[in-house]
Amino acid sequence: MAVYTDVSDKDLADLARAYDMGDLLSCKGIAEGVENSNFLLRTTTASFILTLYEKRVDSKDLPFFLGLMEHLAGRGIPCPTPVKTRAGDTLTTIAGRPAALITFLDGVSVKLAGPRHCLGLGETLAKMHLAARDFAGVRKNTLSVGDWRGVFERARDGAETVRPGLTRDIGSELDRLEKDWPAGLPQGVIHADLFPDNVFFLNDRLSGIIDFYFACQDAFAYDIAICLNAWCFERDGSFNITKARALLSAYETVRRLEDAEYEALPLLARGAAMRFFVTRLYDWLNTPPGALVKPKDPLEYVRRLQFHRDVKTSREYGLDR
Amino acid sequence: MAVYTDVSDKDLADLARAYDMGDLLSCKGIAEGVENSNFLLRTTTASFILTLYEKRVDSKDLPFFLGLMEHLAGRGIPCPTPVKTRAGDTLTTIAGRPAALITFLDGVSVKLAGPRHCLGLGETLAKMHLAARDFAGVRKNTLSVGDWRGVFERARDGAETVRPGLTRDIGSELDRLEKDWPAGLPQGVIHADLFPDNVFFLNDRLSGIIDFYFACQDAFAYDIAICLNAWCFERDGSFNITKARALLSAYETVRRLEDAEYEALPLLARGAAMRFFVTRLYDWLNTPPGALVKPKDPLEYVRRLQFHRDVKTSREYGLDR
Repeated sequence: MAVYTDVSDKDLADLARAYDMGDLLSCKGIAEGVENSNFLLRTTTASFILTLYEKRVDSKDLPFFLGLMEHLAGRGIPCPTPVKTRAGDTLTTIAGRPAALITFLDGVSVKLAGPRHCLGLGETLAKMHLAARDFAGVRKNTLSVGDWRGVFERARDGAETVRPGLTRDIGSELDRLEKDWPAGLPQGVIHADLFPDNVFFLNDRLSGIIDFYFACQDAFAYDIAICLNAWCFERDGSFNITKARALLSAYETVRRLEDAEYEALPLLARGAAMRFFVTRLYDWLNTPPGALVKPKDPLEYVRRLQFHRDVKTSREYGLDR
Repeated sequence: MAVYTDVSDKDLADLARAYDMGDLLSCKGIAEGVENSNFLLRTTTASFILTLYEKRVDSKDLPFFLGLMEHLAGRGIPCPTPVKTRAGDTLTTIAGRPAALITFLDGVSVKLAGPRHCLGLGETLAKMHLAARDFAGVRKNTLSVGDWRGVFERARDGAETVRPGLTRDIGSELDRLEKDWPAGLPQGVIHADLFPDNVFFLNDRLSGIIDFYFACQDAFAYDIAICLNAWCFERDGSFNITKARALLSAYETVRRLEDAEYEALPLLARGAAMRFFVTRLYDWLNTPPGALVKPKDPLEYVRRLQFHRDVKTSREYGLDR
């Protein structure tokens, strides 16, 4: 939930001057996204999301994110399109912050996805991977295998309070991941944070993908591995192979995985679990007790990591070869 | 900013079953109101606000609040109208909480109101007072003159840390207010929390009044006194008599103040300043340091109280008699 920066009367007047967007009918701060301040604007012509970028987003990455959305939307991927200012820019300044106005997408995110949602996800994920192939922007993944140990080290002192023995377990897992992390897999622009709250559905059909603020160059199969973690586990921690099969088979209707990707998927899924474990652990230990944002339990991802460690082949994810 | 309760897939399905509201297009938690969780819903037929009432609102008061909105909206006051469930109720249960679906009002609240806004406010305030005269509901003001000392006592230990000498000053002011508080003024249903964030404008014309969750029976002039405090001071603490005159003269075009109200206004304004001072002081001292909701400076209202204490007659508010 996030509205870190307030929008003043003058900011709204600046906005109306900057964009050809119709007359403002309403402006509500919305509780979405944890990195930025977001407002839902309705005008006489359309609805928009106004995003003010806060400190956690590196402003030099913004042209990449906005350019990517524009590129994907132009190729039929249902994602928000940045609206250009009267001067032709997608990036502006509101309330002293870098800001962008993007189109509003209808749809509702599901809290607990079913196989039908995973079908839509897999298909759109593959289409997105292909659609971004001719996007010129470049952004390194700053939360890749070489970065996880650093995040973990900063949370290390608190790790044992979360679960005794965690420091040793994670340390040896990091050793393994760093040693064996696959190289040379098909690469391109990936979303890298495609959790259910970033995907909208209308009547169980995928209607939108949002929040491209972790997008970067990395292995396509790593994006799939993130989705396996984010979409295919039940609340009780069990893995739902029906959902995974739906996700993977739908992906393959658009883009067939190469053998190397098939082989690498269990290890990539371990890595993806590690990536969300280390950042959740850091947030868990660094969120003040009274904050309205409740941090997510990091141990959930230790359990997922353990699941993937026991997976021998991608057949156990429902991927038949 | 407030989304205390999450709405699940099942809650949204329950909602669609409970109301004849069209197909859901989107649902966003919004950062508005500090007592309840609010969601902006768009459906194929309209936009709505879904409010889940949290613990700070006494659920036995809800029929009063919802009935009042329905009553006022039916008499042309621009306020949200509760939507009835298919069973004909305005109150339902969503996510285990009392909940209501209300119509969405266009408009934007102003951060710094000008005289034109105060004109619209005064006129609508008077119309609202008259429109509620035949409303049958009854709710005692639970934050009236007899209640302020109790709130202050609970914050007393911290008061001296906010400003040395505050305990003594506020104590003697409470003595005076309790002794001299006017009785017998014209009464009815008042809004009791009509701050700029609860009033919407479109092109400087008042388009909506929201948040009736402090509404109660009390003196009409006390509601005016609250507005004088909430709308007529500048950021630097100075009193803007042009705004006050606009507010009061517009009010009197609809409902002329009786002599007793004219006489009582300075004291009522002191009381209104005290009412917001004590609750702000309490929140100031009881908000955890890391919370996203930043408490408002209580001393602002001590300065307003001091201003009203120096007012000899309502002429100093721009009210000519």
